[in-house]
Amino acid sequence: MSAPATVSVPADAHALREAAGAALDRMLSRRPRVHAMLSPVAQPLAANIAAALGIDVSMSHDPVDAPQMVARSHSALINLGMLDPVRREGAAKAVLTGTPFVLDPVKIDRASERFAFAQKLIQAGPSVIKGNRAEMAALGAIADDFVTVTTGAQDLVRDGRRCATLHNGTPMLDRVIATGCAAGLLVAAMVAVETDPFVAATAGAGLMAFAGELAADGSHGPGSFAVSLIDHLAALDGAALTKGLRID
Amino acid sequence: MSAPATVSVPADAHALREAAGAALDRMLSRRPRVHAMLSPVAQPLAANIAAALGIDVSMSHDPVDAPQMVARSHSALINLGMLDPVRREGAAKAVLTGTPFVLDPVKIDRASERFAFAQKLIQAGPSVIKGNRAEMAALGAIADDFVTVTTGAQDLVRDGRRCATLHNGTPMLDRVIATGCAAGLLVAAMVAVETDPFVAATAGAGLMAFAGELAADGSHGPGSFAVSLIDHLAALDGAALTKGLRID
Amino acid sequence: MSAPATVSVPADAHALREAAGAALDRMLSRRPRVHAMLSPVAQPLAANIAAALGIDVSMSHDPVDAPQMVARSHSALINLGMLDPVRREGAAKAVLTGTPFVLDPVKIDRASERFAFAQKLIQAGPSVIKGNRAEMAALGAIADDFVTVTTGAQDLVRDGRRCATLHNGTPMLDRVIATGCAAGLLVAAMVAVETDPFVAATAGAGLMAFAGELAADGSHGPGSFAVSLIDHLAALDGAALTKGLRID
Repeated sequence: MSAPATVSVPADAHALREAAGAALDRMLSRRPRVHAMLSPVAQPLAANIAAALGIDVSMSHDPVDAPQMVARSHSALINLGMLDPVRREGAAKAVLTGTPFVLDPVKIDRASERFAFAQKLIQAGPSVIKGNRAEMAALGAIADDFVTVTTGAQDLVRDGRRCATLHNGTPMLDRVIATGCAAGLLVAAMVAVETDPFVAATAGAGLMAFAGELAADGSHGPGSFAVSLIDHLAALDGAALTKGLRID
Repeated sequence: MSAPATVSVPADAHALREAAGAALDRMLSRRPRVHAMLSPVAQPLAANIAAALGIDVSMSHDPVDAPQMVARSHSALINLGMLDPVRREGAAKAVLTGTPFVLDPVKIDRASERFAFAQKLIQAGPSVIKGNRAEMAALGAIADDFVTVTTGAQDLVRDGRRCATLHNGTPMLDRVIATGCAAGLLVAAMVAVETDPFVAATAGAGLMAFAGELAADGSHGPGSFAVSLIDHLAALDGAALTKGLRID
Repeated sequence: MSAPATVSVPADAHALREAAGAALDRMLSRRPRVHAMLSPVAQPLAANIAAALGIDVSMSHDPVDAPQMVARSHSALINLGMLDPVRREGAAKAVLTGTPFVLDPVKIDRASERFAFAQKLIQAGPSVIKGNRAEMAALGAIADDFVTVTTGAQDLVRDGRRCATLHNGTPMLDRVIATGCAAGLLVAAMVAVETDPFVAATAGAGLMAFAGELAADGSHGPGSFAVSLIDHLAALDGAALTKGLRID
């Protein structure tokens, strides 16, 4: 991963954990409306996790309906997984509505056209960009002006000034499809209730990673883990998240 | 919700419960072929619930394949969730085949074009229209000539003459994506084996609500609830449904 | 089912079981990249089973992205379920990349256009064709030059010389959507690591059938069975598969 263009300093871990927990409590009480554009394979888990948390989620990718729905939502997720012409057109219009959005540039390191499309969307000013190491490396300095979450064994959150490393998580999250996409949706839901996107990114990514840890305990494999993950996500509140996050 | 144009009287609850149970037993023995057109996010749960009950379900939305498949099915579900141009064309052709169909006008209260499309489909004469309060209120008097299910904390079934209130259900059903869409599929499957659509609507909606009650017992959250819901739906028969329904 | 044009003799069951187990161990250690093109309703289970086994799966159906991704994959699955114009175009291009592929000609016995499309894809030379009895009967002699898996209460694997009957399996596999589609993906993953497609077909189909048997024990219905199926698939290794397969 290329070095950031600006020097960032570790965020105050204690304050960040408190702020993340407070954001979760606001999300649970306000139940924001979030429009999530992602691939069919990722939709069921992402939608079920949203429903489990009381998020009012919609997922149309139609070029007519989607921009209208994004305009009426508190935030949006634009995920480029399995992009097709219809969803591409819907996404291009959706980011022009002014609604804050999170960009997940899935596999831009493997598909040149998708990379060009991500660059175009970034011009609309995403609140947060979330990708794995290969995807964020492909973006390079383009991402430096934004809050980013670089996912991996440990998630790295940064903006131009601050950085935080999340030590929560479990390898089981990689054995279930769409957990990363659903984490993007959680970040978008946090953006709807938290004005500092650095906090929102930490809260959303941290919520998924911590619930994953809890779910891995007592699971018999990826099938029962996925079920338990949803149960744990539905049960967490701000105090539990603040206590559970391991940040430095 | 606007008042119905005609006066309806409560259905005989005892006879309705018996008729609903008998319809379920016929559905389980005949295994009707049902073509369900609904959004990708709703397809997996709806299809798994159909498979659990032995319904022979198909889901193509292709404008060529779907009308052929609907023509060869005993009934169909047309669900407008996440409508896109391809599925819109397929649905418009499908309702002209003469196969009885159930219409679920998802979010027509939020998208003007979708409302106009629902009006067009209603001209083809759905056996049952199923929507939530906001959707049914948007339809208004247009729905008065049809059997309707208005979903909510209690489901209300009515036609021009009769009405019935279903007291089964659990808030957990709102924490899992596509349970309402799957209930629409169950109503369609009942339409395939029951000539009175008022009974079919009660049986399909009641089956989902009662199974939900059973599944909520012993679940640890929305994830394990969804698993248990499928298990309970697969285990119910007509006698159990008749005994479990709470109608007035 | 029409009689094969050539005489085939039973494969050596012991050697076949050993070879299938060895193929599974290679798949688990090499984690092949497999591109699977299948319907939205089948994607979540198929993708989760792939992820549970560590297969690096992608699923784009876009006519631009999909052929690129297939070209970079070790093998591919082309499944015709719920075919639509976009996926048809993507699939037609994908089979020309030279990457070995498995064809699952879903419901070609029910849709004439889909049958013609399957014939076209077969000209590109699939490594394995997998279908149910009605689908394989519709193909008739066209399939004789290929390794085929004919699914049913017992799966029949054959090529021009050899045949094998798999006695593993459980009726519960028919009560969960997309288990057959996911079996096709497992065959494709085996094709990526096993040069003899007859062995690959046996290993992939046998893995699903044997894991199904294990999962049926202790399940309470189709919902808990599906969860347990994923857990068991993730836990099996070559030695367990070799021991569990019942072939003659």
